[in-house]
Amino acid sequence: MPPRGRRPSGGPDTREQILEAARELFAEKGFERTTMRAVAERAGVDPALIAHYFGNKDGLLNEALAMPVDVPLLLSDLDHARPGVDIVRRVLHFWDTSPQLRKRMTGLLRTGLSNEHAAAILRGVLSRNVFATLSQHVAEDQRELRTTLVGSHIAGLLMARYILKVPGLADADPEQIAVAVGPVVQHYLDGPIAQVPRHPARRSG
Amino acid sequence: MPPRGRRPSGGPDTREQILEAARELFAEKGFERTTMRAVAERAGVDPALIAHYFGNKDGLLNEALAMPVDVPLLLSDLDHARPGVDIVRRVLHFWDTSPQLRKRMTGLLRTGLSNEHAAAILRGVLSRNVFATLSQHVAEDQRELRTTLVGSHIAGLLMARYILKVPGLADADPEQIAVAVGPVVQHYLDGPIAQVPRHPARRSG
Repeated sequence: MPPRGRRPSGGPDTREQILEAARELFAEKGFERTTMRAVAERAGVDPALIAHYFGNKDGLLNEALAMPVDVPLLLSDLDHARPGVDIVRRVLHFWDTSPQLRKRMTGLLRTGLSNEHAAAILRGVLSRNVFATLSQHVAEDQRELRTTLVGSHIAGLLMARYILKVPGLADADPEQIAVAVGPVVQHYLDGPIAQVPRHPARRSG
Repeated sequence: MPPRGRRPSGGPDTREQILEAARELFAEKGFERTTMRAVAERAGVDPALIAHYFGNKDGLLNEALAMPVDVPLLLSDLDHARPGVDIVRRVLHFWDTSPQLRKRMTGLLRTGLSNEHAAAILRGVLSRNVFATLSQHVAEDQRELRTTLVGSHIAGLLMARYILKVPGLADADPEQIAVAVGPVVQHYLDGPIAQVPRHPARRSG
């Protein structure tokens, strides 16, 4: 029989309990104002277990901000003819059919916005997961700009549709959004993008 | 001479002091966990003054979430030939030259993400300010979709460049972003967007 009161320490779910408590507290209070002790209390475990599983608060934050989606898997075997539309369609389908996602991503964003350090960690997570995958579908020239434009466009769309629930996007048919946004994503992937010289161009005359 | 300790109550800056305190607390703790009493304490004023200026907590939130930019003014007299590029250029210039903006918008977003009610208020603010202005530059067909796509695309861009500081956007030349994103904004304003029938199309054969 499980012990009453405090949840068991060290059981197979302990790690997930700690992460869940950390996600809640980071989102509620921000990174700075969340203590390891408070996480331990909410999770009902000994603080030493957090150190055992995650090292320090940074380690905990890194795991708490992990993407709740396997991005490489979600974007594998894309439609070769129209990867842009396919990407938008899959991302919307994933969000439309994952009711827990909205809460998780809202908390993740709130945490990332809580201070510079949390923003840096979220940036690292996005870079390793989302941008690394997207960049494989992107043309050589201006690869970083293209990749981040695709990522930020889709992020803005998800925030408006699922988190802020802006009318016009929140209630739109996902296929309507896919055919409207997909060609733009395709354009950022491999369409012509004007290049501005980094330094003032020399005159040739 | 001004009184020492508590700031003067009822002076010309009192309203702004209350708003500033409310913005900080809403962003730190979220809407739900912020009390009028805590706002009054941080602002150093009598709680009755908050009721006097803002009515209730909703009134306070509405004002706290006001856009820190006069959007109709920012987007007035757009370049008729290329309004899309002009919009992106002006928005980036405004952000690049307004150092306080990042903090204010980060707090605004954190507050809007804190619960459903705050999200609804932020939605209203965006609708009255940003979307109402943008929609004047948008083609008749699918006006709401076009408007919100422009708005969410630019919002995603601003979040990535100024708030999360994603490499590739944070360090890009603003003119490079304007020539890359401007044509896309132009496309959403008045380019061809495929229309998906709201209901399954009847077969004609």
